[in-house]
Amino acid sequence: MTQFMDVHHGMKGITRDQLQAAHQADLAIEKEEGVHFERAWADPNSGTVYCLSEAPSAEAVQRIHERTGHKADEIHAVPLSV
Amino acid sequence: MTQFMDVHHGMKGITRDQLQAAHQADLAIEKEEGVHFERAWADPNSGTVYCLSEAPSAEAVQRIHERTGHKADEIHAVPLSV
Repeated sequence: MTQFMDVHHGMKGITRDQLQAAHQADLAIEKEEGVHFERAWADPNSGTVYCLSEAPSAEAVQRIHERTGHKADEIHAVPLSV
Repeated sequence: MTQFMDVHHGMKGITRDQLQAAHQADLAIEKEEGVHFERAWADPNSGTVYCLSEAPSAEAVQRIHERTGHKADEIHAVPLSV
């Protein structure tokens, strides 16, 4: 298992409720791909959302995000953290 | 105080020790700008580093990163998180 940071663009104006709903949708099915979404942060002004997950692969992360209707624009393995 | 996510590009090959040293350098002077760097994640393959902080402004975050020799390429306020 590796940590991943994925980035979504084009989410201008995202609200707290929308972020929470998107995160809950991911959590509801994440186990089917062995993924766990740990945190998410949103900048409504630039429309950027960052999601931190632990997963077997970037593809597994993307499959969950695609099924819940918010495909990631970038997914980076972040094996180093402090 | 607001949370910020800043992004550094061009850090290909960054090691765990280098990430730790950069983070420690930020921590050593962060109080001078009222900033606290909470976490950092690095992808050595793409050379991307993400830093999560709590700070009074994006400019305060950047002033610390500049003084420690690693200016951020992007800084986003992330007032929403889950």
